[in-house]
Amino acid sequence: MQTTAYAAHEQGAALKPYTFERRQLRANDVAIEILYSGVCHSDLHVVRNDWGGARYPVVPGHEIVGRVIDTGKDVSKFKTGDTVAIGCMVDSCQTCDQCSNGEEQFCREGMTPTYGGLDRQTRELTQGGYSKHIVAREEFVLSVPESLDLSRAAPLLCAGITTYSPLRTWNVGPGSRVGVVGLGGLGHMAVKLAIGMGADVTVIGRNEAKAADARELGVERFLVSADESAMKAARNGFDLIIDTVPVRHDVSPYMPLLDVDGALVIVGQIGPIDEQLTVPMIFGRRRLTGSLIGGIAETQEMLNFCAEKNILPECEMIRMDQINEAYDRMERSDVRYRFVIDMATLQDTV
Amino acid sequence: MQTTAYAAHEQGAALKPYTFERRQLRANDVAIEILYSGVCHSDLHVVRNDWGGARYPVVPGHEIVGRVIDTGKDVSKFKTGDTVAIGCMVDSCQTCDQCSNGEEQFCREGMTPTYGGLDRQTRELTQGGYSKHIVAREEFVLSVPESLDLSRAAPLLCAGITTYSPLRTWNVGPGSRVGVVGLGGLGHMAVKLAIGMGADVTVIGRNEAKAADARELGVERFLVSADESAMKAARNGFDLIIDTVPVRHDVSPYMPLLDVDGALVIVGQIGPIDEQLTVPMIFGRRRLTGSLIGGIAETQEMLNFCAEKNILPECEMIRMDQINEAYDRMERSDVRYRFVIDMATLQDTV
Repeated sequence: MQTTAYAAHEQGAALKPYTFERRQLRANDVAIEILYSGVCHSDLHVVRNDWGGARYPVVPGHEIVGRVIDTGKDVSKFKTGDTVAIGCMVDSCQTCDQCSNGEEQFCREGMTPTYGGLDRQTRELTQGGYSKHIVAREEFVLSVPESLDLSRAAPLLCAGITTYSPLRTWNVGPGSRVGVVGLGGLGHMAVKLAIGMGADVTVIGRNEAKAADARELGVERFLVSADESAMKAARNGFDLIIDTVPVRHDVSPYMPLLDVDGALVIVGQIGPIDEQLTVPMIFGRRRLTGSLIGGIAETQEMLNFCAEKNILPECEMIRMDQINEAYDRMERSDVRYRFVIDMATLQDTV
Repeated sequence: MQTTAYAAHEQGAALKPYTFERRQLRANDVAIEILYSGVCHSDLHVVRNDWGGARYPVVPGHEIVGRVIDTGKDVSKFKTGDTVAIGCMVDSCQTCDQCSNGEEQFCREGMTPTYGGLDRQTRELTQGGYSKHIVAREEFVLSVPESLDLSRAAPLLCAGITTYSPLRTWNVGPGSRVGVVGLGGLGHMAVKLAIGMGADVTVIGRNEAKAADARELGVERFLVSADESAMKAARNGFDLIIDTVPVRHDVSPYMPLLDVDGALVIVGQIGPIDEQLTVPMIFGRRRLTGSLIGGIAETQEMLNFCAEKNILPECEMIRMDQINEAYDRMERSDVRYRFVIDMATLQDTV
């Protein structure tokens, strides 16, 4: 199937219209017309090859909401017209212990990313959601509950699951004391999801700049990390801190904020972190760890949870031809809190 | 009660004979004649004030085995003649959530260390096990099971519980893949306890120097951390790694050895550790954490476990007047694996 898209044709290039072929439906494939596509910071990292290994042309986008337009003959979960979603993965080995445990993101053979990966059968480049259509095996297609506002659901597929998964891993529930560092696309979802689970949420910022934003999201507690006495008073006060800051920063001031057995989970920053002190770890069994999206079953659970609790990201809708400008603004953190591309605008631009 | 001991009278001083008063028995106190006292690296750190805050004179020793010689009127758990033990703590608030959960080591008010702390009632200095007698409240006195060889049991009270507790926290059992970094007093206990729990144990060393020692302890698997290809082949192969190395070292090479959700537990090194990469944390939810001795209930559980499985430290028995020489040897790692002072030799030297 021929489809239209926006792609970067070489490292760091502006995205521009691109026409390419989506694969013919295999027996277990679902063809989807994409309605909305979220814009993740990772998209920009890959366009620029910040993490290495990028292949071009690349059609970014792994926060995908759309409608089923065709199904392979063996597809049983979906039918034409269903509202569905695709996140950061489109395939995995499906046989290893991790896949069997619903942790496809940790597939022993490596999961196949939605874009920039290689199809497990043909070794063709996978291409993402800034596109009119996508084809994926049904095991990696999610159902979007009817009550979820489609125009705002897309960011749940990456920002949502990335923060939902650690909240579940660390058993957050009513009364859990959760800190969120960084209040961007991921951070604001961590806040909403943790509140939805009944947690007592605090946003931790370098200064007061985001205190008003935190309040708008329903968070009364704002902790300024530059305020030494406030930080001291907050010691031992958290069961879980989710650190969503995407750039290098010192996480060691956050460790003493954790209570015994508390965990600091890094979800934003891929790379080195500064020298750590072992004292907070030894004297309190505090854990420093990370988390990567979530498995397919957990992603479905998250979508159902968001529908039930009416939890949605704050989005700014853009046209497809505004994507390069949106990247510039994302770099300056000038977005509250996630850009979503209305894919109906793609046909006007190609 | 007047007792004899060996004490350091000022920072870094050689230990020498010292006579002082143990407190009169309170209603819930147990008076103990000390039979054996283990020598821990912490003893030397405190004599030298390596961690700051040391008070002198200090009688070190927190691996104590002895016999009850008197009890306060309200003592119900012990009677004269019982074989008992004391570890690293002699008191805590007994009312906070941590104490109520059997985690006295994390008492919200701070536990009272066996030596170098302040009595919670009189604010007098607590003094440790290099002494003929000790008096402690019954809640911090352990029962030594009859079948345990008294002359080798003392190191269980610190080296034993320090390694037993993380093995239990991280649910080690039959088939668990456990790595042990460092093969000293703590490391060799980690090995014995993990084997006792049915784990598949690997010792990880910088070079082959300790491979023979590992084999003697019943460990077939020895991983040389300087061998890059061996380290690469060992990736994802551990559920738990206990790092017992007491000096600054780079722990980051060990993180990729952990499987998904695996934990690296630091029990030896108090201080800063080098820059960490977040990649092993994010791409596998690997945890970097620490652990501190264990609670009283867990310490009793550990003693019972060692009695049942006949697990004992490898000890070198010394006389009380050999302690300064033993410190010198300990510094050179010239001990396999723990010095124990036969306290019957104290009367010959004072």
